[in-house]
Parts: sequence; structure tokens; C-alpha cells
Amino acid sequence: MRAHNLALVLRTVANSADRPSRAAISLATGLTRATVSALVDDLIAGGLLTEHDPAPRTGAGRPAAGLALSPSGPAGLGLEINVDYLAACVVDLTGDVRHRFVTQGDQRPLSPSASLASLGGLALQALEAASADGLAIAGAALAVPGLVAPNGIVRVAPNLDWQDVDAPALFNVLPGLSDLPITVDNEANLAALGELWADGGEQSFLYVSGEIGIGAGIVLGGELYRGGRGWSGEIGHVTVYPDGRPCRCGANGCLEQYAGQEQIAADADLAASALGIALAGVINLLDISVIVLGGTYATEFPRLRAGIEAELARRVLTAGLAPVTLRAAALGPDAAMRGAAGAVIQELIDDPAAFLMRTP
Amino acid sequence: MRAHNLALVLRTVANSADRPSRAAISLATGLTRATVSALVDDLIAGGLLTEHDPAPRTGAGRPAAGLALSPSGPAGLGLEINVDYLAACVVDLTGDVRHRFVTQGDQRPLSPSASLASLGGLALQALEAASADGLAIAGAALAVPGLVAPNGIVRVAPNLDWQDVDAPALFNVLPGLSDLPITVDNEANLAALGELWADGGEQSFLYVSGEIGIGAGIVLGGELYRGGRGWSGEIGHVTVYPDGRPCRCGANGCLEQYAGQEQIAADADLAASALGIALAGVINLLDISVIVLGGTYATEFPRLRAGIEAELARRVLTAGLAPVTLRAAALGPDAAMRGAAGAVIQELIDDPAAFLMRTP
Repeated sequence: MRAHNLALVLRTVANSADRPSRAAISLATGLTRATVSALVDDLIAGGLLTEHDPAPRTGAGRPAAGLALSPSGPAGLGLEINVDYLAACVVDLTGDVRHRFVTQGDQRPLSPSASLASLGGLALQALEAASADGLAIAGAALAVPGLVAPNGIVRVAPNLDWQDVDAPALFNVLPGLSDLPITVDNEANLAALGELWADGGEQSFLYVSGEIGIGAGIVLGGELYRGGRGWSGEIGHVTVYPDGRPCRCGANGCLEQYAGQEQIAADADLAASALGIALAGVINLLDISVIVLGGTYATEFPRLRAGIEAELARRVLTAGLAPVTLRAAALGPDAAMRGAAGAVIQELIDDPAAFLMRTP
Repeated sequence: MRAHNLALVLRTVANSADRPSRAAISLATGLTRATVSALVDDLIAGGLLTEHDPAPRTGAGRPAAGLALSPSGPAGLGLEINVDYLAACVVDLTGDVRHRFVTQGDQRPLSPSASLASLGGLALQALEAASADGLAIAGAALAVPGLVAPNGIVRVAPNLDWQDVDAPALFNVLPGLSDLPITVDNEANLAALGELWADGGEQSFLYVSGEIGIGAGIVLGGELYRGGRGWSGEIGHVTVYPDGRPCRCGANGCLEQYAGQEQIAADADLAASALGIALAGVINLLDISVIVLGGTYATEFPRLRAGIEAELARRVLTAGLAPVTLRAAALGPDAAMRGAAGAVIQELIDDPAAFLMRTP
């Protein structure tokens, strides 16, 4: 009950446009003022909330008095391994990006342990930078371009040539990182969540992440749709040309062979057309009216847009009845690591009691 | 509150494997015995429930005493207009099909009013047959192969060549049918619901309806996924061969041009392969592990199965990690009209108060 009420109070503050007072929280939650005050005191002691004193009345522009998420409270570490780069960022409880590290470099020649060791190096830099700010990292989430099992094992990441890689174990074995709680998720899923939290407007959209590989995150009614086994969104392996180019997955004519980052560089028109054909299929199936293009697609959006829209106009059955919105990701290529860090923050806000219990 | 409790009691009876007593309902719902008894009396008076007396103890095989949905209570009329047939069925409150009428005949040369008038003829036959059984029809639902707006207007049904057809208005104008409440929905959606209610085991599956046209109903976690505007499931217009055969919709290479009923007759192997390519795309996107084939596909399942499964094995990224189940619809070609009648029954069970208020 206390755990539930702690979460209720914290969520009320997190979702408030202004800084609510203890009395306002009591009103919003239906909890008594005494209960709210005790819970707020615990959340302040745990570093999750800060309380701003009423400012003297000196006119407009002053920050409001009341409670707010603490920018010096526990922070989330977002990590990403992709085919040609590694990335890490520190996001504080208020959602601000405090530090950001990106290393370019082809991971394909490296073993999973070697890639995870390089990422560990970035993670340690991020931990140090956070610590210099007085920020404690509550946990990490890692975005990978592959199919992830619930226990964090990467079952397949075709473009990294990973198979059954126990990413949390390989990460936690690194010196200085053994105590850091880490979860692993598909990069397009985390990027879709990053966009959902960053934008806040669209509640249903398809996020498509164009890197060396191509993945998608499906957000329906404000929730990530993961599929029966958590393996939804593999749009990169949707067939576009049934007898077309061979793909690493063993099939022929997969979208990835026409609209991956390396193919865009070679022939942007073909990439746009192939992507448009695949997206038209998704829209016909799911009746989703917003498509968000991320990763390389966000950068290349101006070159790709017209070609994609031409295929949508031609192939979406309802194109004449209702418009489809195509846009570049608000977070650009950072969406996955931002979503990863956001997932840590979201878990803190959903279950502050678990965090407070872990904290001495 | 009374409306909510009436629904709660009725649903408790509907979902019970045996016939619950008033005391058992009180226990299951948390309502007092006196409240349950008053609600049960109202539901019996309205013809929705029947109460079976305790049978003398004469051994096994006797029906249990207690409350059950009434087989002589209000019934649902399921209707279907498809490209080459019309159909109607009467389903009672217990889910039993009491009457079934099918008329073969190409609807393409007919106007919408003419098709709806023929269907009206079937509906009147069904009403008469129901009346001879002492059954009152609570309402009708009509399945159509097209995109339906929330007000029941069929925006587009490409294979019927319908555009903005006000199906309820054209149906209710017919003599003897003016008072019958009618809703309209996509045939694949209703068929998917029919399968969900008939099977009861699978909670997430893709239902694919193969007729002259091809549609799909997406069931996720026991709920029909309708999409943003109710137009999900248009798998018939998913591109299989981008530069392929022209489709009535204006695009090229739509699944419908390779795996529709008329194409199966001409080349079953090509149909199976095209269907397999499109289904592999759906599985890659949605991570759905059960595909139910209905309409003509249910009848032709033995001829199509191997060809579809070969494409799934080749093109589903997770084919090696987890199996996909492909099966024929349990209700065969009747799924859509059964789902339509079931939708009427479901509405009665969800909101018995509305029905009781309408009933003198």
C-alpha cells in the first residue's frame, strides 16, 4: 500500500505542469494531507523530490513554490550498441540530458565481449561525469539491434552477427560496472519510447529506425506493442521484392537490402521506394496514421520524403480518405539511447519504493 | 449502478462453466444475496436468464440446478453481404445457431440497394424462422467486405464497387425491417471475433478471410485491434510484387491479385506463395504466432498449407526460434455471419439494462 501510494504521489508531481503543493497532491490523489506529507518527506529524503520555498512576491517569471522532481536525484544511463557506433547518455529525473557520448566504429569485426567492453568504457566515462555532477546512476538500459529475450539475452542480432549473447553478464563482468543494474531491449522499441516521451502528443505511431539494419517500434494508444514474444517490429525483414537481393537472414528481397543506411548512400530513390512499399503495407494492416522516421532516416529525411510519399499515395488503400503524416524523429539519431535512459527513469517513477529500499 | 450490476450478474452466469446458484453469484461478485436476487429476478423477467430447479438425485448426467442464459431469450441476427453470396443466421443467447440461410449470387452487377434488398429477403426469412421458435431478434449486425465508418456507412468496398453507401438506411427502408437495430462492420473483423468467441483458446491471432477480396482481423490479447480509424486489416492490398498485376484499388501487385478466390482456382501454388509472403511480413511486424485462415482459405486449406509454410519458414526472422501455427478457421466460411450475430449477443450481455429498458 505504501509502495502504491509513493508511486501515486511521485507520478502526480511528474505529470503536473506546475509544481504542486502538498495540499494540491492530497486533493489530486484523495490521500489525507498527513499521509501525503509523510510520503513526500520520504521522497525528498530519497532524493527523488525537491521542495521549493514560496518565493517573495516580486512579479512574474519566478519559479512556482511547491514540489518538483529533483534534477540532482537518481539518473538513468542510456546505452546503445549499433552496427557502426556505440553511445551512452545520462538523463536526470526531470528528463534532461546531462551527458552524451558517441563513438563511431564498425562493430561487425568485433566479438560481443569486445563491443561490450568498448561500451563499458563509455559507460564508465558517463558514470564519472554523472558523479562529478553529484548524480547517482540508478540503473542502465541497453539498446541493441536485435531480438531480445525477457532475461536480457540477445537471441539474434543479424547485422552484428550475434547469437544468444548474454549482454548483461558480459557488461557486468567489467571492472567498475558489476553493481550497475542493466536491462536490454530492442533499439527500435526503446527509440519509439524515447519519441513517445519526448513528443507526448502522438499516442499511436510507427517508429522506423534506419541504420545498417532497419527496425520498427509500434506504439498504440500510448503503449509500446511488443508482440507475443517481444519480437515485433522486424520491418527490416519484411519482403519488398520476393525474388530480390539475398539478405543476411536467409531470405530474399528484405527491406533491409534496399533501404539500409549503406543502400541509401548508393541509391536514395530505390531506398525511398522500397521503404514506401513496406510502410504502405504496415498502414494497410494497422491503420496507423503517423510514421516517424529515425536513425539515418531522420538525417536523410529531406532526400527520402517524396519517394516514400509517392508509394504511400499509390499503395495505401485509405490514402484518399484520410491523410498519413510522415515525419523525422524529434530526437534524431539519439532516440534509442534517450529511450533507454528514459526507461530507467520511468521505472523509478513507477516504483520509487523499490529504489528507496535499495538506497541506504 | 443497477445497469453495471445487471451486467456483472449476467456476465458471471455467461462465463460460468456450470449453472451458478444465486448464492454462488453473490460470492463471485461481492454483491449481497438480496441484491443478486433482485437483479436475477429482473433478468429472468426480461427473458435473459432461466432458472433450473434442483433435480432429484438420480445419478450422473442430470443438468445442474441453477441459473443459465435463456435459449428462448433475445437472439442476434447475423448478416453478410459478400461479393458472390449473401448470408444470414439466427444465434440465440447461449451461442447456438438456430437458423442459417445462404444465397449464392454475384453481387457485382447489382446496385447497393438491390443487394441490400436481397439481403432483406433473407433477413425476413430469418425473422420468421426465429419467430416460429418463439425467439425475438434483439438486433442485427451486417458484415461487409469494405471500410466502414463508425456510423455504419460503407466508405469503400472495392470488390462490390460500393462507395459511401449508407447500408443501415438502405436496409431499414425495407418493409418489415424498419424497426430492426442494425450495425455494420468489416467482414474480416466480425469473422475474427466469431473465431475468438467460438474457439476461446487463442487470445492473439491474425484471422485472414479469403474471398473474392482478402481481409484480415487482428486479435491481440482477446481484443479486436481496429486501428486508428477502424480500417485495420487490409492485407488484400499489401504489396507482394511491387511491379505486378494491377489491382482495382489503383496499385500494382496487391495480394488480392494473386491469392483471391478466383486466383486460387487458376493457380493454387502462386496463391499460396503470395499469401505466405504477405503473412511472413505480418509476423515479422506483429510477432503473432497464430494465423487462422477463413473463407475460401478454410475450404482450400489442404491445398494451400505447404506453399504458405514454405514461405513462412524462409521469410519469418524468428522462424528458427519459435513456431508459427497455421490453421483453418473453426467456423469455416460462416465465421463472418457468426461473428456478426455474436456481436449482437455480446452487446446484450455487456449491457442488459439497455435491452430491458427497450423491452415492454
